[in-house]
Amino acid sequence: MTTAGTLETVSENCSHGGVQGVYRHASASTGTQMTFSVFVPPHADGAKLPVLWFLSGLTCTQANVTEKGEFRAACAEHGVIFVAPDTSPRGEDVPDDEAYDFGQGAGFYVDATQAPWAQHFQMRSYIERELPALLAEHFPADMQRQAISGHSMGGHGALTIGLRNPDRFRSISAFSPIVSPLNCPWGDKALGGYLGDNRSDWREYDACALIEDGARHANLLVDQGTADNFLEEQLRTELLVDACKSAGMPAEIRMQPGYDHSYYFISTFMAEHVGWHARHLQG
Amino acid sequence: MTTAGTLETVSENCSHGGVQGVYRHASASTGTQMTFSVFVPPHADGAKLPVLWFLSGLTCTQANVTEKGEFRAACAEHGVIFVAPDTSPRGEDVPDDEAYDFGQGAGFYVDATQAPWAQHFQMRSYIERELPALLAEHFPADMQRQAISGHSMGGHGALTIGLRNPDRFRSISAFSPIVSPLNCPWGDKALGGYLGDNRSDWREYDACALIEDGARHANLLVDQGTADNFLEEQLRTELLVDACKSAGMPAEIRMQPGYDHSYYFISTFMAEHVGWHARHLQG
Repeated sequence: MTTAGTLETVSENCSHGGVQGVYRHASASTGTQMTFSVFVPPHADGAKLPVLWFLSGLTCTQANVTEKGEFRAACAEHGVIFVAPDTSPRGEDVPDDEAYDFGQGAGFYVDATQAPWAQHFQMRSYIERELPALLAEHFPADMQRQAISGHSMGGHGALTIGLRNPDRFRSISAFSPIVSPLNCPWGDKALGGYLGDNRSDWREYDACALIEDGARHANLLVDQGTADNFLEEQLRTELLVDACKSAGMPAEIRMQPGYDHSYYFISTFMAEHVGWHARHLQG
Repeated sequence: MTTAGTLETVSENCSHGGVQGVYRHASASTGTQMTFSVFVPPHADGAKLPVLWFLSGLTCTQANVTEKGEFRAACAEHGVIFVAPDTSPRGEDVPDDEAYDFGQGAGFYVDATQAPWAQHFQMRSYIERELPALLAEHFPADMQRQAISGHSMGGHGALTIGLRNPDRFRSISAFSPIVSPLNCPWGDKALGGYLGDNRSDWREYDACALIEDGARHANLLVDQGTADNFLEEQLRTELLVDACKSAGMPAEIRMQPGYDHSYYFISTFMAEHVGWHARHLQG
């Protein structure tokens, strides 16, 4: 593929028998150019493969997990397409904030309603609607078999998008996710900025609130390092444990001793997550 | 470990059940601070583990393979320590060249004899003598069981250091190595600059010349991508094939269809290289 429709190929590299690509397109949702990566594992001509989405964390682009995530061997083994979007709109014309946890690189997977953010920061629509359509058009993706994962802010994205769309995503996993933006400083700042002061508007962007409000998913896996500097104040895994318990929703939430917030942690458990999703994506 | 003797810990992260560390020390060989990374897999208290060296290519530091190499899962599985040194001395007081293929980031694993390089560019001594002693002192390394690998310029390093020290390294592998600096532009420039015009002085830094001059190793594995932009002019794998054939030296030299010079290639075959070395490192 070089340029198919509105999709521009930034790079394609052979890897693990498949192709790791990076692509760019003009997004209607964000009104900007958006970049994402797709790994297509080796497959028979004409075959359609299940899709695992991976949403990244604060400050990341699609490149971090693409370079450091160590997902390709497992995706090749299980025949799973791996999609990594960017974490926000970007560009000189896009509003930004000096801090790392708001504005560019920190879209929080919401559709912003507040000026000046609402014009471009429409990451929920981008991830839930626009990018899936593009993927279905340009890649050998079986959109009937999707799963979603993510890290930190992207773990929040995976949990909330998965819980809002349980029929689309057969399984949800997360690495060190922000489980409740309503109850941490990162969430206060970002959702307040993007959505305004009415905190009831935040609930559809809060995994714990979604579960409290009735959302359910049968297949949920979370890994959280105990040496993660953000655990106590920002991530607060215990709130998700409590929400699942109160709702009687089964979930595998594992505390991993000694692991921190980095890709050294993510890559350790990535192959297991891919394999776990692959089992749910079969058939 | 925080600071043991002259070794400073830059970072340590839990990964794949072991510890991925980055360390810094004052090098007597180069007269500079040198940084390297070590992955120590999970192991029994008091156990000594075999060591796999990985030498990196032009422009790289220890960080490239440490972040993108995808070696930790295999090293954890096989119980192998993985050591990644930097590719040259660095610093404001260290001579440099504007080009990417000479000076800092391009030490070529030689002991330079020419001014102004000779003062700091002593990478052969650093890799062959100083760093092994440091490793033996500070890590649970069984120095009776060592193997060596590398990429591009580091593949050249692995081949030449391994061929010069067949009793120390039980196995040698390389990804897209420069097989003959005597016969490529990168080699002409670097060895001419570091060693001077007498090309007979270059032969101990040329894998093909070493084999022509009698060096042998029983366990040699090379992977080379056919879509590698540097293959034809710089890497010239065919010269190593010819040298091994002429010498009657068995070697597994594999051309990998469609792969390029990047870490997407290296990471594809890294686990296989680690497993291959591990078999030679047993017992």
